[in-house]
Amino acid sequence: MTQAHLCADTAAVNVTFDDGAKGTFPFLWLRDNDPTGFHPDTQERLTDLTTISLDTAVTDAAVDGDALALTFDDGAAVRYQLDWLAAHRPGHALADPAKTGIRTWRADMVADAVPRLKAADVLSSDAALKDWLVATQASGLSLIEGLPDDREAGMDVAKRIGFLRETNFGVTFEVKSKPNPNNLAYTPIALPLHTDLTNQELPPGFQFLHCLANEATGGGSLFSDGFAVAEDLRAEDPEAFELLSTISVPFRFHDGEYDIRSRKKVITLDEDGSLKEICFNAHIAGILDIAPEKMPAYYRAYRKFMLMSRAPAYLVTFKLQAGEMVIFDNRRVLHGREAFDPNTGARHLRGCYVDRGEFESRLRVLAR
Amino acid sequence: MTQAHLCADTAAVNVTFDDGAKGTFPFLWLRDNDPTGFHPDTQERLTDLTTISLDTAVTDAAVDGDALALTFDDGAAVRYQLDWLAAHRPGHALADPAKTGIRTWRADMVADAVPRLKAADVLSSDAALKDWLVATQASGLSLIEGLPDDREAGMDVAKRIGFLRETNFGVTFEVKSKPNPNNLAYTPIALPLHTDLTNQELPPGFQFLHCLANEATGGGSLFSDGFAVAEDLRAEDPEAFELLSTISVPFRFHDGEYDIRSRKKVITLDEDGSLKEICFNAHIAGILDIAPEKMPAYYRAYRKFMLMSRAPAYLVTFKLQAGEMVIFDNRRVLHGREAFDPNTGARHLRGCYVDRGEFESRLRVLAR
Repeated sequence: MTQAHLCADTAAVNVTFDDGAKGTFPFLWLRDNDPTGFHPDTQERLTDLTTISLDTAVTDAAVDGDALALTFDDGAAVRYQLDWLAAHRPGHALADPAKTGIRTWRADMVADAVPRLKAADVLSSDAALKDWLVATQASGLSLIEGLPDDREAGMDVAKRIGFLRETNFGVTFEVKSKPNPNNLAYTPIALPLHTDLTNQELPPGFQFLHCLANEATGGGSLFSDGFAVAEDLRAEDPEAFELLSTISVPFRFHDGEYDIRSRKKVITLDEDGSLKEICFNAHIAGILDIAPEKMPAYYRAYRKFMLMSRAPAYLVTFKLQAGEMVIFDNRRVLHGREAFDPNTGARHLRGCYVDRGEFESRLRVLAR
Repeated sequence: MTQAHLCADTAAVNVTFDDGAKGTFPFLWLRDNDPTGFHPDTQERLTDLTTISLDTAVTDAAVDGDALALTFDDGAAVRYQLDWLAAHRPGHALADPAKTGIRTWRADMVADAVPRLKAADVLSSDAALKDWLVATQASGLSLIEGLPDDREAGMDVAKRIGFLRETNFGVTFEVKSKPNPNNLAYTPIALPLHTDLTNQELPPGFQFLHCLANEATGGGSLFSDGFAVAEDLRAEDPEAFELLSTISVPFRFHDGEYDIRSRKKVITLDEDGSLKEICFNAHIAGILDIAPEKMPAYYRAYRKFMLMSRAPAYLVTFKLQAGEMVIFDNRRVLHGREAFDPNTGARHLRGCYVDRGEFESRLRVLAR
């Protein structure tokens, strides 16, 4: 049975919950999170911290049914639901259904093992949509099949998640060979493995490439899991990992209309040291500007990451068919393509992006 | 006169330029940046680092007119323009016209001193557009006047910079009191100073609020320069500054359709320690989840920042008139509004965002 007691020394209420979990709730935190201090419609906090004394104190605490009942030193009586308190114990991050288990993969995930769902299911069923997002979050790579020969068909599936992320290349983009290209994707040459738009302050999250035609000779798709490469680099060559995860380097795209620059680490870690993001794009790498004496070691590390990402041990390759769409986490999975011969047939992919924010929000809402 | 000499020990070419500036150019860097190794249309790098030996060496270097002429050990002869080399010396960041002088302000910048430009000028003249962007970058706050009574008029001015940033509130949003609000902005209550959408991984950059009507009693606008507050906090209370610039705290917005979460520091610093971003929004601050023993010091620092930002020493206040638009750096300048009485007249602002990436790109292109 849940028990609560005051601890004046630490200015907190200590609670031991039914399941044995213990929580320490500072008096000030309790006042700041008075459940009546949130707007009933918007759920936003109305309590203004400046109206609360830093010395606010609880004078009486008791468990009353499914609530903790407190009295503060100014006489205010406030009740907190015990299950809400258990979910929000200070020192413990709130559970997040969008942070599902990432499963890194290497070449052992053959092309046949890439998660594959039917467009009609994802369009009509929230359960199928959730299955797709969970699978895509886990592996960073999935396929949608059964799309009609319609330029909007793939985009409509993407919009099931949320609005599309606009960039200097538009809300959507056409990957096909064209005259006067402003991006190598719009030529027929091979594209070594990379992540897109690392020159942006926030590179786009998930990328969607709907294949409308792929009849040309060549033009196969290549993928490797940047998190797997980074994990292995961390184990095998800690010095290289350290350099790539601490030194920021410039990226830049410039054409007649834009000049977009950003600095990024090749490997960005979360505060707990886990992998958060891979930024690797040799095409729009800026002119390296780190101190000359740091360059030999940095170039060695950078080149090693590049070689590893292309090694057969990490590569998954397949040729997209018309009616298929590939989806990948652009901040994790590197993608590339083989050269193709535009004289042998049409090759046309239509692309768009949905950012991590919208993707994770949709996962959380579907998990309710 | 520019001079160059090889230094085999450090594997670099050392150059002393006409103006006395010295550059150290590692052999590998020179090979990586061979000017013929960039695509002629897209300007993207085609040179593949994996094809270059880490031991690549220059065997001969000479200044020849306006170029540095090198011979590599595999016989390759490559020329580099001297002015290009001078601009890209390793160890020196490339000059950036978008990083113009930030000028922090306090209450001494009275409302009359806020940069003010005419909509017609910004719409028709690139020079006026550039003046506006430079002024807005410097102070983080400006006004556009002379807008017609047209819902799109303010947005059209914003689009002179670049495309609008979409969020869960749409591409544009209407700030007026409405039933069943999902944001406090859509109520008539006072809004204490804050920055918008700190729950997003990338909070929107510049915010545009076009005033279509402001006849209600109350509803004045408040601004304070978060960089000025942070500068002063750094000087006056280093412990508080340290906590706010190192501890990440949760932000969250959730309604029927979205659940968008992010962690942010109140003060984010650039790698060189300069101020990069302020994230302050008590309304969508999540339930504080840091360790309970850290809370007393953190709450003290956070509350102090809050009190300082509202202090008369930092506040600029004015009431927007119909036909005016206020623009501010949402990642620097805090904004708020006084309560208004919707029974005394209409109040209607129409808003949108343009991100820093597009804003800075436009500044760079206009500076060419």
